[in-house]
Amino acid sequence: MRIREATSEDWAQIWPFLRDIVRAGDTYTWDRDVTEGRARELWMSTPPARTVVAVDGDTVLGTAKLARNHMGPGSHIANASFMVSPDHGGRGVGRALGGYVLDLARADGYRAMQFNAVVETNTRAVALWQSLGFEIIATLPEGFEHPAKGFVGLHIMYRKL
Amino acid sequence: MRIREATSEDWAQIWPFLRDIVRAGDTYTWDRDVTEGRARELWMSTPPARTVVAVDGDTVLGTAKLARNHMGPGSHIANASFMVSPDHGGRGVGRALGGYVLDLARADGYRAMQFNAVVETNTRAVALWQSLGFEIIATLPEGFEHPAKGFVGLHIMYRKL
Repeated sequence: MRIREATSEDWAQIWPFLRDIVRAGDTYTWDRDVTEGRARELWMSTPPARTVVAVDGDTVLGTAKLARNHMGPGSHIANASFMVSPDHGGRGVGRALGGYVLDLARADGYRAMQFNAVVETNTRAVALWQSLGFEIIATLPEGFEHPAKGFVGLHIMYRKL
Repeated sequence: MRIREATSEDWAQIWPFLRDIVRAGDTYTWDRDVTEGRARELWMSTPPARTVVAVDGDTVLGTAKLARNHMGPGSHIANASFMVSPDHGGRGVGRALGGYVLDLARADGYRAMQFNAVVETNTRAVALWQSLGFEIIATLPEGFEHPAKGFVGLHIMYRKL
């Protein structure tokens, strides 16, 4: 597995699994019926934001986006988002992307990273971020409408860099 | 004082004080050198977001913006931002706008309101939101680079509706 900056050619492989993850609606606070055009706008970054992909040869396994979480006097706090293809789950793609993006954020001069919306029922993601040094600093009660479980909490997670 | 939906004609009165507040850089996580065009895009909402103004006759005293804080399965959480003209401070414009926007958010079906970035040294704002029922649910340590005080905390505030 190798991680590199995403190119516009990667989008054709990103969109099918990103679409499925967003449509499932149990982990992401995106509109479930997001169009491909809007999704591409949201995911494929322009500087200073960055989008990366984890690849195995020509196959995209997962992708991550690093961006500012606040503007102006808060722009030293990064945000990141991660999407791993369900076809390639269980082989550490999320963890590898997480470590890579933390390093990238440090190199870009960010001082901390904040996740705004980690669904509390997404326990694998919560555990992964905790193992990478993130803490749950707050939980929005009933912040997320889960398709099967109803209103569940939405964690805000944070770590210094 | 009356509060009503903002119209495009109001922008000419909003921009001078909004610009000064953003340029002072001690309360807002916006780029301090924001252009008028970008500021207008950020502030003058399109549905489902709303922008309102507090007016005294033809004079705009302050303005507020109500929008979704999250998308999709988190879109029942509102966000709001407030700007009061320094020329008209101390007469309860912020409090009146706050109460109005809370009612508006309830009427629009939001279930909670979240502020992402209340600068801890902006003690009047913190106290105002607390008196309107908001709690500090987390503080990003050194989350805001204050022009005089260096890195200070950035509160996340929240209340159910």
